[in-house]
Amino acid sequence: MKFKPLGDRVLVKRSAEGDQKSAGGIIIPDTAKEKPQRGEIIAVGPGGTKDDGTLIPMNVKKGDQVLFGKYSGTEIKLDGEEFLIMREDDILGTLQK
Amino acid sequence: MKFKPLGDRVLVKRSAEGDQKSAGGIIIPDTAKEKPQRGEIIAVGPGGTKDDGTLIPMNVKKGDQVLFGKYSGTEIKLDGEEFLIMREDDILGTLQK
Amino acid sequence: MKFKPLGDRVLVKRSAEGDQKSAGGIIIPDTAKEKPQRGEIIAVGPGGTKDDGTLIPMNVKKGDQVLFGKYSGTEIKLDGEEFLIMREDDILGTLQK
Amino acid sequence: MKFKPLGDRVLVKRSAEGDQKSAGGIIIPDTAKEKPQRGEIIAVGPGGTKDDGTLIPMNVKKGDQVLFGKYSGTEIKLDGEEFLIMREDDILGTLQK
Amino acid sequence: MKFKPLGDRVLVKRSAEGDQKSAGGIIIPDTAKEKPQRGEIIAVGPGGTKDDGTLIPMNVKKGDQVLFGKYSGTEIKLDGEEFLIMREDDILGTLQK
Amino acid sequence: MKFKPLGDRVLVKRSAEGDQKSAGGIIIPDTAKEKPQRGEIIAVGPGGTKDDGTLIPMNVKKGDQVLFGKYSGTEIKLDGEEFLIMREDDILGTLQK
Amino acid sequence: MKFKPLGDRVLVKRSAEGDQKSAGGIIIPDTAKEKPQRGEIIAVGPGGTKDDGTLIPMNVKKGDQVLFGKYSGTEIKLDGEEFLIMREDDILGTLQK
Repeated sequence: MKFKPLGDRVLVKRSAEGDQKSAGGIIIPDTAKEKPQRGEIIAVGPGGTKDDGTLIPMNVKKGDQVLFGKYSGTEIKLDGEEFLIMREDDILGTLQK
Repeated sequence: MKFKPLGDRVLVKRSAEGDQKSAGGIIIPDTAKEKPQRGEIIAVGPGGTKDDGTLIPMNVKKGDQVLFGKYSGTEIKLDGEEFLIMREDDILGTLQK
Repeated sequence: MKFKPLGDRVLVKRSAEGDQKSAGGIIIPDTAKEKPQRGEIIAVGPGGTKDDGTLIPMNVKKGDQVLFGKYSGTEIKLDGEEFLIMREDDILGTLQK
Repeated sequence: MKFKPLGDRVLVKRSAEGDQKSAGGIIIPDTAKEKPQRGEIIAVGPGGTKDDGTLIPMNVKKGDQVLFGKYSGTEIKLDGEEFLIMREDDILGTLQK
Repeated sequence: MKFKPLGDRVLVKRSAEGDQKSAGGIIIPDTAKEKPQRGEIIAVGPGGTKDDGTLIPMNVKKGDQVLFGKYSGTEIKLDGEEFLIMREDDILGTLQK
Repeated sequence: MKFKPLGDRVLVKRSAEGDQKSAGGIIIPDTAKEKPQRGEIIAVGPGGTKDDGTLIPMNVKKGDQVLFGKYSGTEIKLDGEEFLIMREDDILGTLQK
Repeated sequence: MKFKPLGDRVLVKRSAEGDQKSAGGIIIPDTAKEKPQRGEIIAVGPGGTKDDGTLIPMNVKKGDQVLFGKYSGTEIKLDGEEFLIMREDDILGTLQK
């Protein structure tokens, strides 16, 4: 079963906490500030709709490693696996090797 | 009796909870986050109105299996059956086999 | 005496509760959610105003059977009869036989 | 002394409560909902300003019998007589014989 | 010393309360509603800025007798005299003899 | 070290309270209303960005004597001297001799 | 590992407090007002999206010394080093020698 996000939404697979600290070297400081989380883009919507009815293309693509706010998105399970659905604007940026 | 949604609204038939767990493999995790729900699009409105008065076409169509937020939409009964009326923007995405 | 709604407003004659259950088969479930109500469009305004000053035509017309939110609109009495004035956007959709 | 409303504002002479019940047949139900009131348009502004700086013409004119929300507008006295200044958008519609 | 308002602001000299009751015949009713006040336009800004960067011209001019809300504007003193700076949109209308 | 404001921001050197009362003749009345303050524009940003990506030019320039709300802007110290950074829209107007 | 900000976001390396006071001569006054902080732009996003889908170019670039509000941005750690991700609009201005 495949999930296709609508509009400017993306489907994100959150990285395990262990991954965050070892693989990517990202350590989230223990403060009261919103803490970003890491994940991989699994699917992207077609993009938001412009005033003239055409699409604004998405800036992220399948496979992108991204950071996003801890409280961004809606949790879903597809075929037993957990994912997040969020708007592209909730994504802070991409990680590149 | 047939219901025709106005503007960018859709009429959705919510899937039974049993269906959600067996048929589609969607299991909603037991957290404090907003939990999406599954349903089928029964009818779609003509679309929202652009600034120049023409329509922005809808991105979902009759028969689409969709996910939406638990608290999205307004419940109605038509000919004894329960439905939800919501705006297209409340739909997170579509499920495809 | 005739009432002409201004802008994108409509004048609605709410259906009696008895009508809602027998004639149209609409039964409103007893939940905490907003419950839609049924009525008939009695008069429609010319439509909202576009940025260039021309009108966005209305999508409902006199005689339409419509559903709307329970708390939508302003109650008025014209020649002893009760009506509701609401904006077109408060109308969820139309019922067709 | 003459008052000229600015922008999309109108000057309204509220009808006496007695008028409302006898002449126009409008009786305001005793509920918690916002209750519309009746009045006559005494003067209208030139209209709101479009993005390109030209005017959006007004939809009401001097002499129109109108309904408006009970809490709409600002009360003023001109030459000893009470009036209301409100925006055109606060007017629900017009009454025609 | 001369004050030049910026954007769509105006400099207003509030009329004395005595003036309001005798000269213009304006008496402000003693209710809980916002009460308009009278004044004279002393200086006007060039106007607000349109989306394309040009100016939306002002609708009031130096010398206009205007009504405005009691709590509109910011009080300043220039050369010992009290004035109000407010946006043109805070002005309800003009008084003409 | 030179500070260059971004977008439609300006760098302002607040006038000493003594200056306000003697030089310019501005005396701020002792009321509960927001009290404007006087200062000099030290640097201006390039201007806000229009929808088409070009700049909306600034209406104030280096050296302008301006009035602004007491609580406008962010305080900074550059090379030991105190300044305010604020948006051009926070400036009420300019003073000219 | 390299982080690429999305949209109109920037990656900022905050200057140490010691740097702020000695090198740049910036001393933040001890008041209740929001206090700006200094940092260096490490990476910039492609820019925000215009209504027609093209990009609004960024006004800051890699290497710029900037001031920003104390509570702006989201803290992240990349390869053990702390950074801030914020929107370009959160940047008050740039410092030039």
